[in-house]
Parts: sequence; C-alpha cells; structure tokens
Amino acid sequence: MQHQKLDLAAARGMIAAAEAHAEVAGVKATIAILDGGGDLVAMIRMDGAWPGGFDLALGKAMTARSFHAPSSAFVPLIQPGQPLFSVSSVGGGRYVILGGGLPVTLDGDVVGAIGVSGGLVEQDIAIAEAALAAFNPGN
Amino acid sequence: MQHQKLDLAAARGMIAAAEAHAEVAGVKATIAILDGGGDLVAMIRMDGAWPGGFDLALGKAMTARSFHAPSSAFVPLIQPGQPLFSVSSVGGGRYVILGGGLPVTLDGDVVGAIGVSGGLVEQDIAIAEAALAAFNPGN
Amino acid sequence: MQHQKLDLAAARGMIAAAEAHAEVAGVKATIAILDGGGDLVAMIRMDGAWPGGFDLALGKAMTARSFHAPSSAFVPLIQPGQPLFSVSSVGGGRYVILGGGLPVTLDGDVVGAIGVSGGLVEQDIAIAEAALAAFNPGN
Amino acid sequence: MQHQKLDLAAARGMIAAAEAHAEVAGVKATIAILDGGGDLVAMIRMDGAWPGGFDLALGKAMTARSFHAPSSAFVPLIQPGQPLFSVSSVGGGRYVILGGGLPVTLDGDVVGAIGVSGGLVEQDIAIAEAALAAFNPGN
Repeated sequence: MQHQKLDLAAARGMIAAAEAHAEVAGVKATIAILDGGGDLVAMIRMDGAWPGGFDLALGKAMTARSFHAPSSAFVPLIQPGQPLFSVSSVGGGRYVILGGGLPVTLDGDVVGAIGVSGGLVEQDIAIAEAALAAFNPGN
Repeated sequence: MQHQKLDLAAARGMIAAAEAHAEVAGVKATIAILDGGGDLVAMIRMDGAWPGGFDLALGKAMTARSFHAPSSAFVPLIQPGQPLFSVSSVGGGRYVILGGGLPVTLDGDVVGAIGVSGGLVEQDIAIAEAALAAFNPGN
Repeated sequence: MQHQKLDLAAARGMIAAAEAHAEVAGVKATIAILDGGGDLVAMIRMDGAWPGGFDLALGKAMTARSFHAPSSAFVPLIQPGQPLFSVSSVGGGRYVILGGGLPVTLDGDVVGAIGVSGGLVEQDIAIAEAALAAFNPGN
Repeated sequence: MQHQKLDLAAARGMIAAAEAHAEVAGVKATIAILDGGGDLVAMIRMDGAWPGGFDLALGKAMTARSFHAPSSAFVPLIQPGQPLFSVSSVGGGRYVILGGGLPVTLDGDVVGAIGVSGGLVEQDIAIAEAALAAFNPGN
C-alpha cells in the first residue's frame, strides 16, 4: 500500500517491516520514526536491544530529516581534512552521523525519517530500507 | 493476561489499551512506556497530537519511574508555600510534575512507567490507568 | 573524631552516620558528599531508594555548597512575592532548593556539603545533620 | 562471594576491590557503579583524584551499560575513517568512549556497569576488572 502521509498507521507499518527484517537478520534493533518536523511518531526497542540504541536511532533519523539525505551520506564529509569535520557536535549531539537514518519522501518532499540502531551499520541501513520500502512500495 | 515483565509485547498491549481509551475519550494522545531503568520501550503519538506531547509524556513517565509514585502525587507539593516548591527544574527539566505518569510495578518492584499527554489532566490520568490495567489486569 | 579535612575517609564516615540514621528512621536514602569545589567525593543510594534521589541529593548539596547555607534556608525566599522567586532554575536546574542540603564548615570555611533525599523533608534534614555531626562532633 | 544482584553491598564490595587495586597501582581513581538502569548505586573519588574524573567514570560506565560492551570496544570504531567516527557527542556527551567502563552481567543480563577514571587507560581498565572480579569471582 502506498501511504499518502506519514501518520501513525504508516509509522506502524514501517516499524513492522523493519522489525521483521531485524528478526530475520538476528538484530535486536531500536527503530524510531519521525515526522517532517522531527518529532517522534512512534518508536520501539526490541527485547534485548541496548538501552543506548534510542539515542543513536533518534540521532540518525534527526540527521536524515534535518539534512534531507541518508545519515550515511555525511560520514565521509566529517572525516579529518574534509569540509564538515567537527560538524558532529552541532546541536549538542542531537545529530548522529552514522548509517541507519533515512529520510522519507513523498512527492519530492521530506515528510519524515527513519532511524535504526542495534546491528552493524550495514544491518541498520538494511533495516531502515525495509521500513522505507513499506512506506514507498514502488521505490 | 498478567504480564511477567515489561517487555515490548507488554508495552504494545499497554499502548493499545491506552490508545483505545483515548479514542473513546476523543483525546489525541502521546503515550510513552519506559522500563525500570527509565529507557523507552515504545511510544506512539496519535495523529493530530501536539508535537510537544512527547516531552510531557516522557517527563511524566520519568517522574513516576524515578520517584516511585504517580506524577500527580507531587503536584500539590510543588505549589507556592509547599515543601517541594521549585523542584520542577531538577534534572534539567527531565521530570514533569503533572498528572498522567504512573509507575508500573511487579511483585512490589517498579519495573517501568507510563506517561501520557494530550488531553486534560484527568483524561491523561485515565488513559494511563487504562494502560496500567492492561499490564496488571487484577489490580 | 574531629576531621581536619573533607577527604574520602571523612566522607565515608559521614555517609555511615547518615545511613545508620536513615535505617533507624526507616528511610531509603540517597546520600551525596561534595567537596568545597562542588565535586562529588562519595555517594550511595540505599537499596530500594528512588532512582531520582540522586538528582535531588546532588542538587541540595550543590545549593548548600554554592550559597554557604542549608538548602532549606532559601525555601521561604523563593516563594511567590519573595525576592528570590524563580531563582530555582538558575544553573539549568543544578540547584535544588529543598531541605536536606547542609554546608560542611571547618574553621569558618565551607569545605563541602551533604545532600540527602529519600524521606520527608524533615527526615532528610535529620539524616544530613547526622552526617554533619560525624564530621564536626563538637558542633 | 558470588553476588546475586547489584545492590549497595555488592557495589561497595566492587569499589573496595577497585580501590585496593588502584592503591597498589599508585592511581588516584574515581570509581562509579551504576545499576542496570544507568542510575548510580555508589561512587567514590580517592583523595587527590581529579575532580573531572567523575564525568569520565560516569560516562564510561554509562557507555558500557547502554551498549552492553566494554567502553574500550568502541575506541577503534570511532577513529577517523571508521564507521562510528563522531559518535562521541551522542546523547549530549553522556557517553565516554574510552577504556575503563565495563558492563556487569548476571545470568546473561546486563545488571549494571563500572566506570573508572584516574590513571592511564590500561590502569583504569585493570581497576575496573578488579571491581568486576569482586562481583563475579568465578569469571
């Protein structure tokens, strides 16, 4: 089902898809869904997931929401010698520049974001992509 | 069903009960469930609920978790002339002393907390109580 | 024994005295001892004490240390219509203006502070006084 | 003695073991013990230890508690060019990614954490390990 907005029903569908992916991958994930304003719509922490996963999942989603790109996109740019070095502490630490955050777009607008933490970076990204596919099935 | 621990399944059951109560009451609520350590297990924001509801729901739940009592219990005590006046800003504002936060207990231990924001205080309390009843049906 | 400085041995003696008093009073207390610089020397949280007690105990001790008076002394002054109204949020909430914080003095200098949380205000004050008496037996 | 829970008695035993180790090593350490929820159970700062040691000890313990691994495990991962570079500021700086933080486990669950600061990293780790050995003698 193509969602027409990122409401609670859509967020739950995204979380369910992410959770199913995480279970198959053996990852205990924390999954956060933000709306276009950067406010939480829903989150879950799977049993046994690190307590600290929320800080990471939220920060990844906030990065994707706030800068209109996957959080992983900025990782090369913040390395020593690169233009965005030291940007990571902007906002008192509310951005987490680490793969696993994806913006959610609709008709070209960023209407929210997904953040995932709990596995290896590649796993977190794959789980976030599963959530995104549940929102935009055709993409 | 009496839950034996506050895991994600229990948290979802509590949220579902709270949400059902809120819908009947016509309240657009934000509902947060913490574990005994004060870490989020799950949260939802119902469609149309204030974005700021999360700060309130989280702070109410944190108050109940951290002081082992309903957040409403402290409201009379922080009034002008009362012993706890001005305690509100403790912890940099992470406690919200306002009805709608309830501790979740199991065998006498505080194993988590519920926080609700979105309606009148009495409505938020009733929604939180519905969540609690889903965890401890016999109480 | 009259202590000549607020070192770790003295802090432990103060905590032991406070803890013994709390046990007799049936209070599950959190007890924090600061040095003259406002840094923690030692703290304990008794079994079953509220997790939030640390924020309160620390804030009470910081108030006593920073303003050279029992934290209870400022409670009347911050009430509505009084000169210090609204001072409580100074420092982002690191001061707690509530009885249970006492400065520790030696030869007229403030060399540290005690903060206690867990019981009624009067109980917290009595527990803090027991700690102080262990430092300055003659007072 | 194998402890069955991380209560105040257990925390004091862990601190005593850590302190004894630190004294032999000539380290003036700050030692913090958290419960599974990340709340302080007890802490001490040895005479002459840096005042800033508490921030480091607490942050190391919080890292170990929140991510279920020794804080040292993440040090290689946050280096330039590595996946977690720039994660350090997550959570407003409440995590300290530096050796000397260890999770405390019981029956496979993380029930708390130790954080130590004051010496060289290797010394802090060894002091934390002494504390852990006092909790889980057989490990």
